[in-house]
Amino acid sequence: MNIASKTGYSPRLADRMEGMKASEIRELLKLLDRPGIIAFAGGIPDPVLFPQDEVRRAYDAVLSDSAQAAAALQYSVSEGDPELRDWICGYMAERGVTCTRDNILITSGSQQGLEFLGKYLLSPADTALVAAPTYLGALQAFSANQPTYDLLGGPGTNRTAASYAAAATAAGGTAKFAYVVPDFANPSGETMDVAERRALLALATELDVPVIEDSPYVTLRYDGAHQSALQSLDGDDINQSRVIHCGSFSKVFTPGLRVGWVCAARPVIEKLTLIKQASDLSSSAMNQKVMLHLARTRYNQQVTEAIAHYRPKRDAMLDALRTHMPDGVTWTEPEGGLFVWVTLPDGMDCAALLSECVEKDDVAFVPGHAFFADGTGRNTLRLSFSLPPLADIRRGIAALAARIKVEMLKIA
Amino acid sequence: MNIASKTGYSPRLADRMEGMKASEIRELLKLLDRPGIIAFAGGIPDPVLFPQDEVRRAYDAVLSDSAQAAAALQYSVSEGDPELRDWICGYMAERGVTCTRDNILITSGSQQGLEFLGKYLLSPADTALVAAPTYLGALQAFSANQPTYDLLGGPGTNRTAASYAAAATAAGGTAKFAYVVPDFANPSGETMDVAERRALLALATELDVPVIEDSPYVTLRYDGAHQSALQSLDGDDINQSRVIHCGSFSKVFTPGLRVGWVCAARPVIEKLTLIKQASDLSSSAMNQKVMLHLARTRYNQQVTEAIAHYRPKRDAMLDALRTHMPDGVTWTEPEGGLFVWVTLPDGMDCAALLSECVEKDDVAFVPGHAFFADGTGRNTLRLSFSLPPLADIRRGIAALAARIKVEMLKIA
Repeated sequence: MNIASKTGYSPRLADRMEGMKASEIRELLKLLDRPGIIAFAGGIPDPVLFPQDEVRRAYDAVLSDSAQAAAALQYSVSEGDPELRDWICGYMAERGVTCTRDNILITSGSQQGLEFLGKYLLSPADTALVAAPTYLGALQAFSANQPTYDLLGGPGTNRTAASYAAAATAAGGTAKFAYVVPDFANPSGETMDVAERRALLALATELDVPVIEDSPYVTLRYDGAHQSALQSLDGDDINQSRVIHCGSFSKVFTPGLRVGWVCAARPVIEKLTLIKQASDLSSSAMNQKVMLHLARTRYNQQVTEAIAHYRPKRDAMLDALRTHMPDGVTWTEPEGGLFVWVTLPDGMDCAALLSECVEKDDVAFVPGHAFFADGTGRNTLRLSFSLPPLADIRRGIAALAARIKVEMLKIA
Repeated sequence: MNIASKTGYSPRLADRMEGMKASEIRELLKLLDRPGIIAFAGGIPDPVLFPQDEVRRAYDAVLSDSAQAAAALQYSVSEGDPELRDWICGYMAERGVTCTRDNILITSGSQQGLEFLGKYLLSPADTALVAAPTYLGALQAFSANQPTYDLLGGPGTNRTAASYAAAATAAGGTAKFAYVVPDFANPSGETMDVAERRALLALATELDVPVIEDSPYVTLRYDGAHQSALQSLDGDDINQSRVIHCGSFSKVFTPGLRVGWVCAARPVIEKLTLIKQASDLSSSAMNQKVMLHLARTRYNQQVTEAIAHYRPKRDAMLDALRTHMPDGVTWTEPEGGLFVWVTLPDGMDCAALLSECVEKDDVAFVPGHAFFADGTGRNTLRLSFSLPPLADIRRGIAALAARIKVEMLKIA
């Protein structure tokens, strides 16, 4: 960061800006993006999977048809392209959710859905219930509203609705929602089973709050049985459901078009549409039509190709972890998605480990504490197997394991 | 609106949602979008100007180059495409503003810039200074932050900085910014002259608040002398400027790609970049690269074509107003942009007039009171000459004038 950037005109800010600081992790990631490094840090899809020619043909098809082109180049309705919303209804139906286009709002990636939901639900001092660890981008989206965070227990913890409600009151507000990434979570790689999903719905019902189901990775399952969407477990009438489902085309097709969605009860979608209109009028009509074209012509094929590409990478990472990691180090075994979550012995500091690994081993990952709303988790780290080739995955994990052994000896 | 949409699950909302209601005007506009009507209501660019073939070739060029395609289909940095930001620096330089890419944030249309600025600056009960009338979308963007509005005087009014500061304190907050559309304003069509711009800067300096210069129409000038950008009048160092300039490609090229920008001092851009990251990570990398291609190859030509297209429409509308409007009706004579602002005698109600015009004359416009933060202006209306062909403009204004005469007789 340039020295000059510290100086210059700065107005009196809104109070909420106090909570918005540059993410040390995101700043760090920029530094890690250099040639030669084995990139376990980035959480982005592998660009070799982008269907470049098909995207080109899709733009060409839309722009070669005068009527479609005129609509694609104009403002869209804020709710989003009706035909794309219809396609998404079909996608949701395959996940057990019966809905109509009135239940869908198109957003600029699922990140925008999270940002809208924070704005929709959180007054300052209200409580958001989140997992520990949880998606960093969700914390950034919610934090603009100055919430308090309380942690959803994993298996083994057993907090009651009353204890969450009491904590929220003590924090000066009300519990407003529970947020989860139920499938191959970023960052943990873990998937909630149906019993955990039902328990969460029961908790949310008792607290009378919505559940935000953030599910951008759900179709990237490499093995194991599909787990029902939370939204499909909350009754048959979408308009009575307390589950708000966020989806995305970013992980399967491409993040570069910025097309995601929210699926929810109509009163929720109506309010979110007002927020969308005030925020950016609408998402790109052009990109919505192109994404519809891609979804119709090759969604399933694209998923198949992505699974075939990522599964061996996941396997290589898990094999290498088993081969090289010393006793005392544990990790998750994801059935899909892009992430493996590693826990080192207590007392280890993964931020310090990262410095060593980058400098001496040309290996990068994300220290885990950024994913904890309470700032704990310094002995954890997130690995992504998305970008490196198989050989780099094996070599990188071996180097990481060797470095961890060195660091473990220091604290032994 | 469907009856069913009134029922269904709705969670406890954030306090700020009380201020977000469906705009009666935007709801109305949907109803006015029917065949046969003469559409003076919409504020959107004429789609016949969209360079459909050039856009198609631009997507093709980006997606035929593997390196460009891989970047276009991936997440972009939150600040936006560096080369596009460089191009915008050249655009700003032509308007007298010297800046570098660090002074530019790419937004999803200039609407998103306004939304970010509201979030950046306004705590609840703070005051935003806005013109009367002003851009409806700005009021929607700002209102999510529960501000108070105070009105910037036009020529003839003469409020002091002390009176604005006192009013803001009385409202429970602080004056946080002044917002203007200085060139061919939406909705008034008026342009601030240099003396008015300097007076506004002097007021903002005395209040020590930023000035938001929203200037999406500035290149669409049909006659008269260019007026210096507010940002160019506030000293030579962009990093010390209190002017925050919002620009857009939507009015000149196409709104369908959602590409706009904010140009400001670096500390401002740094904070807005954090807001961008939390909001939607980045704008579409694909569309940014395509817009860069279009801007480089045909920005000036596109402006020339747009001026040649809109100038005769504006002339036809002003001619028809002079020919047909009764005494007591006044209107602005815009030197550019898309809008003419009409004021009827006191006591006239343009919402009622609209019902009559739509039902009996197949003519639509926007009643003016939606553009007033204080809800006044019921005897005003906005006309856009963007969409109708010349003959429809003449016929529509004649019919509108005849209807106004009928309504004036009723209140005479």
